[in-house]
Amino acid sequence: MAKSASVQLLGSWASPFSNRVQLALKLKSVEYELVEEAFYVSKSDRLVKANPVYQKIPVLIHDEKPVCESLVIVEYIDEAWTGKGPSILPSDPYERAIARFWAGYIDEKLETASGDEEKFAVVGKVLEGFALLEEAFAKCSKGKAFFGGDEVGYLDIALGCFLGWVKVAEIIGGGKLLDESKFPGLAGWAERFLSHDVAKDILPDALKILEFFGKVQAARAAATTAAE
Amino acid sequence: MAKSASVQLLGSWASPFSNRVQLALKLKSVEYELVEEAFYVSKSDRLVKANPVYQKIPVLIHDEKPVCESLVIVEYIDEAWTGKGPSILPSDPYERAIARFWAGYIDEKLETASGDEEKFAVVGKVLEGFALLEEAFAKCSKGKAFFGGDEVGYLDIALGCFLGWVKVAEIIGGGKLLDESKFPGLAGWAERFLSHDVAKDILPDALKILEFFGKVQAARAAATTAAE
Repeated sequence: MAKSASVQLLGSWASPFSNRVQLALKLKSVEYELVEEAFYVSKSDRLVKANPVYQKIPVLIHDEKPVCESLVIVEYIDEAWTGKGPSILPSDPYERAIARFWAGYIDEKLETASGDEEKFAVVGKVLEGFALLEEAFAKCSKGKAFFGGDEVGYLDIALGCFLGWVKVAEIIGGGKLLDESKFPGLAGWAERFLSHDVAKDILPDALKILEFFGKVQAARAAATTAAE
Repeated sequence: MAKSASVQLLGSWASPFSNRVQLALKLKSVEYELVEEAFYVSKSDRLVKANPVYQKIPVLIHDEKPVCESLVIVEYIDEAWTGKGPSILPSDPYERAIARFWAGYIDEKLETASGDEEKFAVVGKVLEGFALLEEAFAKCSKGKAFFGGDEVGYLDIALGCFLGWVKVAEIIGGGKLLDESKFPGLAGWAERFLSHDVAKDILPDALKILEFFGKVQAARAAATTAAE
Protein backbone atom coordinates (compact mmCIF):
# COMPACT_ATOMS: atom_id res chain seq x y z
CA MET A 1 0.00 0.00 0.00
CA ALA A 2 1.32 3.42 -0.91
CA LYS A 3 2.16 5.76 1.96
CA SER A 4 -0.47 8.24 0.79
CA ALA A 5 -3.22 5.65 0.98
CA SER A 6 -2.55 4.91 4.65
CA VAL A 7 -3.71 8.28 5.94
CA GLN A 8 -7.37 8.81 6.69
CA LEU A 9 -9.13 11.57 8.52
CA LEU A 10 -12.41 10.88 10.29
CA GLY A 11 -13.80 14.38 10.08
CA SER A 12 -16.19 16.74 8.37
CA TRP A 13 -15.86 19.60 5.92
CA ALA A 14 -18.07 21.67 8.27
CA SER A 15 -16.04 21.20 11.47
CA PRO A 16 -13.35 23.79 12.22
CA PHE A 17 -11.43 21.22 14.27
CA SER A 18 -11.45 18.86 11.31
CA ASN A 19 -10.45 21.76 9.03
CA ARG A 20 -7.52 22.44 11.38
CA VAL A 21 -6.10 18.98 10.69
CA GLN A 22 -6.78 19.33 6.96
CA LEU A 23 -4.83 22.61 6.92
CA ALA A 24 -1.85 20.89 8.56
CA LEU A 25 -1.99 17.98 6.12
CA LYS A 26 -2.14 20.37 3.19
CA LEU A 27 0.74 22.49 4.51
CA LYS A 28 2.85 19.32 4.69
CA SER A 29 1.54 18.04 1.33
CA VAL A 30 0.40 14.79 2.92
CA GLU A 31 -2.21 12.99 0.84
CA TYR A 32 -5.16 11.59 2.75
CA GLU A 33 -8.70 10.37 2.47
CA LEU A 34 -11.37 12.43 4.25
CA VAL A 35 -13.95 10.07 5.74
CA GLU A 36 -17.01 12.26 6.34
CA GLU A 37 -18.57 11.62 9.73
CA ALA A 38 -22.18 12.74 10.23
CA PHE A 39 -21.15 14.09 13.65
CA TYR A 40 -24.33 16.13 14.01
CA VAL A 41 -26.53 13.02 13.68
CA SER A 42 -24.75 10.05 15.24
CA LYS A 43 -21.33 8.52 15.86
CA SER A 44 -20.09 5.76 13.58
CA ASP A 45 -18.76 2.54 15.08
CA ARG A 46 -15.45 3.38 13.48
CA LEU A 47 -15.29 6.74 15.27
CA VAL A 48 -16.22 5.24 18.64
CA LYS A 49 -13.54 2.58 18.21
CA ALA A 50 -10.88 5.07 17.07
CA ASN A 51 -11.62 7.64 19.80
CA PRO A 52 -13.24 5.74 22.68
CA VAL A 53 -12.45 8.45 25.23
CA TYR A 54 -14.16 11.43 23.58
CA GLN A 55 -15.94 9.84 20.57
CA LYS A 56 -15.35 13.04 18.65
CA ILE A 57 -13.94 14.08 15.31
CA PRO A 58 -11.29 14.69 14.13
CA VAL A 59 -9.33 11.46 14.31
CA LEU A 60 -6.29 10.94 12.11
CA ILE A 61 -5.65 7.32 11.23
CA HIS A 62 -2.08 6.77 10.10
CA ASP A 63 -1.08 3.23 9.23
CA GLU A 64 -4.16 2.08 11.14
CA LYS A 65 -3.12 3.88 14.34
CA PRO A 66 -5.52 6.59 15.54
CA VAL A 67 -4.47 10.01 16.84
CA CYS A 68 -7.14 12.19 18.52
CA GLU A 69 -7.53 15.84 19.53
CA SER A 70 -6.88 18.38 16.79
CA LEU A 71 -3.87 20.17 18.32
CA VAL A 72 -2.24 16.85 19.22
CA ILE A 73 -2.85 15.71 15.63
CA VAL A 74 -1.28 18.88 14.18
CA GLU A 75 1.88 18.34 16.25
CA TYR A 76 1.87 14.68 15.24
CA ILE A 77 1.70 15.61 11.55
CA ASP A 78 4.62 18.00 12.04
CA GLU A 79 6.71 15.29 13.70
CA ALA A 80 5.67 12.25 11.64
CA TRP A 81 6.45 14.01 8.36
CA THR A 82 9.42 16.12 9.43
CA GLY A 83 11.20 15.84 6.10
CA LYS A 84 8.11 16.72 4.07
CA GLY A 85 7.05 20.34 3.54
CA PRO A 86 7.74 23.24 5.90
CA SER A 87 7.82 22.88 9.68
CA ILE A 88 4.53 23.75 11.33
CA LEU A 89 5.87 24.67 14.77
CA PRO A 90 8.71 27.17 15.15
CA SER A 91 12.16 25.62 15.68
CA ASP A 92 13.10 27.79 18.67
CA PRO A 93 12.01 26.20 21.99
CA TYR A 94 10.74 29.49 23.43
CA GLU A 95 8.73 30.31 20.31
CA ARG A 96 7.30 26.79 20.35
CA ALA A 97 6.18 27.29 23.96
CA ILE A 98 4.54 30.61 23.11
CA ALA A 99 2.75 29.03 20.13
CA ARG A 100 1.48 26.16 22.31
CA PHE A 101 0.33 28.61 24.98
CA TRP A 102 -1.78 30.63 22.55
CA ALA A 103 -3.16 27.53 20.83
CA GLY A 104 -4.38 26.36 24.25
CA TYR A 105 -5.89 29.78 24.86
CA ILE A 106 -7.75 29.70 21.53
CA ASP A 107 -9.22 26.30 22.30
CA GLU A 108 -10.16 27.29 25.82
CA LYS A 109 -12.11 30.26 24.45
CA LEU A 110 -13.82 27.98 21.96
CA GLU A 111 -14.51 25.10 24.29
CA THR A 112 -18.21 25.88 24.61
CA ALA A 113 -18.53 26.01 20.86
CA SER A 114 -16.77 22.74 20.18
CA GLY A 115 -19.50 20.38 21.36
CA ASP A 116 -22.34 22.25 19.77
CA GLU A 117 -21.10 23.46 16.47
CA GLU A 118 -24.45 24.47 15.05
CA LYS A 119 -25.08 27.09 17.71
CA PHE A 120 -23.72 30.05 15.82
CA ALA A 121 -23.91 32.41 18.74
CA VAL A 122 -21.30 30.61 20.78
CA VAL A 123 -18.74 31.08 18.06
CA GLY A 124 -18.73 34.68 19.23
CA LYS A 125 -16.96 33.45 22.36
CA VAL A 126 -13.74 33.60 20.40
CA LEU A 127 -14.20 37.35 20.16
CA GLU A 128 -13.52 37.79 23.84
CA GLY A 129 -10.07 36.62 22.97
CA PHE A 130 -9.46 38.83 19.94
CA ALA A 131 -7.95 41.66 21.99
CA LEU A 132 -5.29 39.39 23.48
CA LEU A 133 -4.78 37.58 20.19
CA GLU A 134 -4.18 40.95 18.50
CA GLU A 135 -1.24 41.43 20.87
CA ALA A 136 -0.12 37.84 20.37
CA PHE A 137 -0.11 38.38 16.60
CA ALA A 138 2.13 41.44 16.91
CA LYS A 139 4.60 39.51 19.08
CA CYS A 140 4.64 36.25 17.12
CA SER A 141 4.62 37.68 13.59
CA LYS A 142 7.23 40.37 14.35
CA GLY A 143 5.72 42.57 11.66
CA LYS A 144 5.51 39.78 9.08
CA ALA A 145 2.45 38.35 7.33
CA PHE A 146 1.60 35.37 9.56
CA PHE A 147 1.82 34.18 13.15
CA GLY A 148 4.53 31.88 11.81
CA GLY A 149 6.43 34.82 10.27
CA ASP A 150 6.82 34.81 6.48
CA GLU A 151 5.10 31.43 6.30
CA VAL A 152 1.93 29.92 7.69
CA GLY A 153 2.60 27.98 10.91
CA TYR A 154 1.03 26.37 13.98
CA LEU A 155 -0.96 29.36 15.27
CA ASP A 156 -2.11 30.33 11.78
CA ILE A 157 -3.64 26.86 11.54
CA ALA A 158 -4.90 26.80 15.14
CA LEU A 159 -6.81 30.07 14.75
CA GLY A 160 -7.33 30.17 10.99
CA CYS A 161 -9.58 27.09 11.01
CA PHE A 162 -12.31 29.22 12.64
CA LEU A 163 -12.39 32.00 10.05
CA GLY A 164 -15.32 30.51 8.13
CA TRP A 165 -17.28 30.43 11.38
CA VAL A 166 -16.35 34.00 12.20
CA LYS A 167 -18.00 34.97 8.91
CA VAL A 168 -21.07 32.91 9.83
CA ALA A 169 -21.28 34.77 13.13
CA GLU A 170 -20.95 38.07 11.25
CA ILE A 171 -23.81 37.16 8.92
CA ILE A 172 -26.05 36.08 11.80
CA GLY A 173 -25.14 39.05 13.95
CA GLY A 174 -25.23 41.55 11.09
CA GLY A 175 -21.96 43.21 12.06
CA LYS A 176 -18.23 42.95 11.56
CA LEU A 177 -16.57 40.98 14.36
CA LEU A 178 -13.00 40.98 13.14
CA ASP A 179 -13.15 44.74 12.75
CA GLU A 180 -9.97 46.22 11.32
CA SER A 181 -10.36 49.43 13.29
CA LYS A 182 -10.29 47.39 16.51
CA PHE A 183 -8.06 44.51 15.45
CA PRO A 184 -5.93 45.80 12.54
CA GLY A 185 -3.28 43.10 12.88
CA LEU A 186 -5.74 40.19 13.03
CA ALA A 187 -8.04 41.58 10.33
CA GLY A 188 -5.14 41.88 7.89
CA TRP A 189 -3.86 38.45 8.87
CA ALA A 190 -7.30 36.89 8.30
CA GLU A 191 -7.45 38.27 4.77
CA ARG A 192 -3.99 36.99 3.97
CA PHE A 193 -4.73 33.59 5.47
CA LEU A 194 -8.03 33.17 3.63
CA SER A 195 -6.35 33.85 0.28
CA HIS A 196 -3.36 31.59 1.05
CA ASP A 197 -3.08 28.34 -0.92
CA VAL A 198 -3.29 26.30 2.29
CA ALA A 199 -6.72 27.68 3.19
CA LYS A 200 -8.29 27.43 -0.27
CA ASP A 201 -10.53 24.38 -0.82
CA ILE A 202 -10.49 23.61 2.92
CA LEU A 203 -12.11 26.48 4.78
CA PRO A 204 -15.80 26.29 3.93
CA ASP A 205 -17.81 29.20 2.63
CA ALA A 206 -19.98 30.81 5.31
CA LEU A 207 -23.17 30.54 3.24
CA LYS A 208 -22.53 26.85 2.64
CA ILE A 209 -22.18 26.29 6.40
CA LEU A 210 -25.40 28.20 7.07
CA GLU A 211 -27.33 26.26 4.42
CA PHE A 212 -25.99 22.95 5.72
CA PHE A 213 -26.91 23.55 9.36
CA GLY A 214 -30.28 24.89 8.31
CA LYS A 215 -30.93 21.46 6.76
CA VAL A 216 -29.57 19.69 9.84
CA GLN A 217 -31.93 21.64 12.09
CA ALA A 218 -34.89 20.93 9.83
CA ALA A 219 -34.05 17.20 9.80
CA ARG A 220 -33.78 17.17 13.58
CA ALA A 221 -37.07 18.99 14.00
CA ALA A 222 -38.73 16.44 11.67
CA ALA A 223 -37.20 13.55 13.65
CA THR A 224 -38.48 15.03 16.91
CA THR A 225 -42.00 15.45 15.48
CA ALA A 226 -42.00 11.88 14.14
CA ALA A 227 -40.95 10.55 17.55
CA GLU A 228 -43.80 12.30 19.37
CA MET B 1 25.33 35.31 35.46
CA ALA B 2 25.56 31.54 35.59
CA LYS B 3 23.01 29.59 33.57
CA SER B 4 21.63 27.99 36.71
CA ALA B 5 20.88 31.38 38.25
CA SER B 6 18.70 32.45 35.33
CA VAL B 7 15.90 29.96 35.99
CA GLN B 8 13.15 30.87 38.40
CA LEU B 9 9.83 29.26 39.07
CA LEU B 10 6.92 31.32 40.32
CA GLY B 11 5.10 28.54 42.13
CA SER B 12 4.26 26.91 45.41
CA TRP B 13 5.31 23.74 47.18
CA ALA B 14 1.60 22.99 47.73
CA SER B 15 0.44 23.27 44.10
CA PRO B 16 0.46 20.06 42.03
CA PHE B 17 0.84 22.12 38.84
CA SER B 18 3.91 23.79 40.31
CA ASN B 19 5.18 20.39 41.47
CA ARG B 20 4.76 19.16 37.91
CA VAL B 21 7.26 21.72 36.67
CA GLN B 22 9.61 21.00 39.57
CA LEU B 23 9.57 17.31 38.68
CA ALA B 24 10.55 18.13 35.09
CA LEU B 25 13.35 20.46 36.23
CA LYS B 26 14.67 17.79 38.59
CA LEU B 27 14.51 15.09 35.93
CA LYS B 28 16.64 17.30 33.67
CA SER B 29 18.92 18.35 36.57
CA VAL B 30 18.21 22.03 35.87
CA GLU B 31 18.97 24.25 38.86
CA TYR B 32 16.37 26.87 39.65
CA GLU B 33 15.07 29.16 42.32
CA LEU B 34 11.53 28.50 43.58
CA VAL B 35 9.82 31.82 44.22
CA GLU B 36 6.92 30.97 46.55
CA GLU B 37 3.70 32.68 45.50
CA ALA B 38 0.95 32.97 48.11
CA PHE B 39 -1.56 31.97 45.41
CA TYR B 40 -4.29 31.26 47.95
CA VAL B 41 -4.16 34.83 49.30
CA SER B 42 -3.33 37.22 46.46
CA LYS B 43 -1.39 37.53 43.22
CA SER B 44 1.97 39.26 43.24
CA ASP B 45 2.67 42.04 40.73
CA ARG B 46 5.41 39.85 39.38
CA LEU B 47 2.99 37.00 38.70
CA VAL B 48 0.43 39.28 37.03
CA LYS B 49 3.14 40.72 34.81
CA ALA B 50 4.61 37.31 33.94
CA ASN B 51 1.24 35.67 33.23
CA PRO B 52 -1.19 38.47 32.32
CA VAL B 53 -3.62 36.12 30.58
CA TYR B 54 -4.33 33.69 33.44
CA GLN B 55 -2.48 35.25 36.39
CA LYS B 56 -1.81 31.77 37.69
CA ILE B 57 1.15 29.76 38.89
CA PRO B 58 3.29 28.07 37.73
CA VAL B 59 5.35 30.40 35.57
CA LEU B 60 8.88 29.46 34.55
CA ILE B 61 11.15 32.43 33.99
CA HIS B 62 14.16 31.50 31.89
CA ASP B 63 16.60 34.28 31.07
CA GLU B 64 13.85 36.73 32.04
CA LYS B 65 11.37 35.26 29.54
CA PRO B 66 8.18 33.79 31.07
CA VAL B 67 6.59 30.49 30.05
CA CYS B 68 3.10 29.71 31.39
CA GLU B 69 0.85 26.63 31.68
CA SER B 70 2.40 23.60 33.31
CA LEU B 71 2.28 21.16 30.38
CA VAL B 72 3.64 23.82 28.03
CA ILE B 73 6.43 24.45 30.54
CA VAL B 74 7.30 20.75 30.78
CA GLU B 75 7.64 20.50 27.00
CA TYR B 76 9.68 23.71 27.02
CA ILE B 77 12.06 22.28 29.62
CA ASP B 78 12.47 19.15 27.49
CA GLU B 79 13.28 21.21 24.40
CA ALA B 80 15.35 24.01 25.97
CA TRP B 81 17.67 21.56 27.74
CA THR B 82 17.74 18.77 25.14
CA GLY B 83 21.35 17.85 25.84
CA LYS B 84 20.89 17.76 29.61
CA GLY B 85 19.48 14.71 31.38
CA PRO B 86 17.06 12.19 29.86
CA SER B 87 14.34 13.13 27.37
CA ILE B 88 10.97 13.76 28.99
CA LEU B 89 8.77 13.02 25.98
CA PRO B 90 9.18 9.80 23.99
CA SER B 91 11.20 10.12 20.78
CA ASP B 92 8.69 8.32 18.57
CA PRO B 93 6.11 10.72 17.03
CA TYR B 94 3.19 8.38 17.67
CA GLU B 95 4.17 7.77 21.29
CA ARG B 96 4.57 11.53 21.75
CA ALA B 97 1.04 12.07 20.42
CA ILE B 98 -0.36 9.43 22.76
CA ALA B 99 1.46 11.00 25.73
CA ARG B 100 0.10 14.47 24.85
CA PHE B 101 -3.40 13.06 24.46
CA TRP B 102 -3.40 11.51 27.94
CA ALA B 103 -1.80 14.56 29.54
CA GLY B 104 -4.65 16.64 28.11
CA TYR B 105 -7.13 14.11 29.46
CA ILE B 106 -5.59 14.27 32.95
CA ASP B 107 -5.81 18.06 33.00
CA GLU B 108 -9.34 18.07 31.67
CA LYS B 109 -10.40 15.78 34.50
CA LEU B 110 -8.66 18.04 37.00
CA GLU B 111 -9.82 21.34 35.54
CA THR B 112 -12.37 21.95 38.27
CA ALA B 113 -9.75 21.32 40.91
CA SER B 114 -7.13 23.62 39.45
CA GLY B 115 -8.71 26.93 40.31
CA ASP B 116 -9.69 25.95 43.79
CA GLU B 117 -6.94 23.82 45.12
CA GLU B 118 -8.04 23.80 48.73
CA LYS B 119 -11.31 22.06 47.99
CA PHE B 120 -10.18 18.55 48.66
CA ALA B 121 -13.35 16.94 47.40
CA VAL B 122 -12.82 18.03 43.82
CA VAL B 123 -9.49 16.25 43.66
CA GLY B 124 -11.60 13.11 43.57
CA LYS B 125 -12.60 14.14 40.04
CA VAL B 126 -9.42 12.56 38.84
CA LEU B 127 -10.77 9.22 39.97
CA GLU B 128 -13.34 9.20 37.24
CA GLY B 129 -10.38 8.92 34.96
CA PHE B 130 -8.51 6.17 36.77
CA ALA B 131 -10.23 3.39 34.83
CA LEU B 132 -9.11 4.81 31.49
CA LEU B 133 -5.69 5.73 32.86
CA GLU B 134 -5.24 2.13 34.03
CA GLU B 135 -5.60 1.07 30.38
CA ALA B 136 -3.34 3.91 29.25
CA PHE B 137 -0.67 2.76 31.69
CA ALA B 138 -0.73 -0.77 30.32
CA LYS B 139 -0.35 0.51 26.75
CA CYS B 140 2.29 3.17 27.40
CA SER B 141 4.47 1.26 29.87
CA LYS B 142 4.40 -1.99 27.86
CA GLY B 143 4.85 -3.96 31.07
CA LYS B 144 7.66 -1.76 32.39
CA ALA B 145 7.81 0.33 35.56
CA PHE B 146 6.67 3.74 34.30
CA PHE B 147 4.48 5.38 31.67
CA GLY B 148 7.79 6.35 30.08
CA GLY B 149 9.00 2.71 30.10
CA ASP B 150 12.09 1.93 32.18
CA GLU B 151 12.46 5.62 33.02
CA VAL B 152 10.18 8.35 34.31
CA GLY B 153 8.76 10.45 31.44
CA TYR B 154 6.12 13.00 30.45
CA LEU B 155 3.02 11.15 31.65
CA ASP B 156 4.70 10.07 34.87
CA ILE B 157 5.24 13.76 35.61
CA ALA B 158 1.84 14.86 34.28
CA LEU B 159 -0.04 12.43 36.54
CA GLY B 160 2.48 11.89 39.32
CA CYS B 161 2.31 15.50 40.50
CA PHE B 162 -1.17 14.77 41.90
CA LEU B 163 -0.22 11.80 44.05
CA GLY B 164 0.12 13.87 47.23
CA TRP B 165 -3.38 15.15 46.66
CA VAL B 166 -4.73 11.69 46.04
CA LYS B 167 -3.49 10.81 49.54
CA VAL B 168 -5.16 13.94 50.93
CA ALA B 169 -8.43 12.85 49.32
CA GLU B 170 -7.96 9.37 50.82
CA ILE B 171 -7.47 10.83 54.30
CA ILE B 172 -10.51 13.09 53.99
CA GLY B 173 -12.68 10.40 52.47
CA GLY B 174 -11.44 7.64 54.75
CA GLY B 175 -10.94 5.13 51.94
CA LYS B 176 -8.42 3.98 49.40
CA LEU B 177 -8.92 5.70 46.05
CA LEU B 178 -6.04 4.26 44.09
CA ASP B 179 -7.11 0.77 45.09
CA GLU B 180 -4.80 -1.92 43.83
CA SER B 181 -7.61 -4.42 43.43
CA LYS B 182 -9.32 -2.01 41.02
CA PHE B 183 -6.29 -0.32 39.50
CA PRO B 184 -3.37 -2.73 39.92
CA GLY B 185 -1.21 -1.10 37.25
CA LEU B 186 -1.68 2.45 38.52
CA ALA B 187 -1.37 1.51 42.19
CA GLY B 188 1.97 -0.20 41.58
CA TRP B 189 3.13 2.69 39.41
CA ALA B 190 2.20 5.23 42.11
CA GLU B 191 4.33 3.40 44.69
CA ARG B 192 7.28 3.23 42.34
CA PHE B 193 6.91 6.89 41.37
CA LEU B 194 6.65 8.10 44.97
CA SER B 195 9.87 6.32 45.90
CA HIS B 196 11.73 7.51 42.77
CA ASP B 197 14.51 10.08 43.23
CA VAL B 198 12.65 12.58 41.03
CA ALA B 199 9.61 12.64 43.32
CA LYS B 200 11.47 12.83 46.63
CA ASP B 201 11.71 16.31 48.17
CA ILE B 202 9.16 17.66 45.66
CA LEU B 203 5.86 15.88 46.22
CA PRO B 204 4.52 17.21 49.52
CA ASP B 205 3.38 15.01 52.36
CA ALA B 206 -0.41 14.73 52.58
CA LEU B 207 -0.51 15.73 56.26
CA LYS B 208 1.58 18.82 55.53
CA ILE B 209 -0.87 19.84 52.79
CA LEU B 210 -3.82 19.32 55.15
CA GLU B 211 -2.22 21.34 57.94
CA PHE B 212 -1.32 24.14 55.53
CA PHE B 213 -4.79 24.52 54.04
CA GLY B 214 -6.31 24.31 57.49
CA LYS B 215 -4.31 27.43 58.36
CA VAL B 216 -5.28 29.10 55.09
CA GLN B 217 -8.96 28.50 55.76
CA ALA B 218 -8.64 29.84 59.32
CA ALA B 219 -6.86 32.97 58.05
CA ARG B 220 -9.57 33.52 55.43
CA ALA B 221 -12.33 33.10 58.00
CA ALA B 222 -10.59 35.64 60.25
CA ALA B 223 -10.23 38.09 57.33
CA THR B 224 -13.93 37.71 56.50
CA THR B 225 -14.93 38.33 60.12
CA ALA B 226 -12.67 41.40 60.32
CA ALA B 227 -14.21 42.82 57.15
CA GLU B 228 -17.78 42.52 58.43
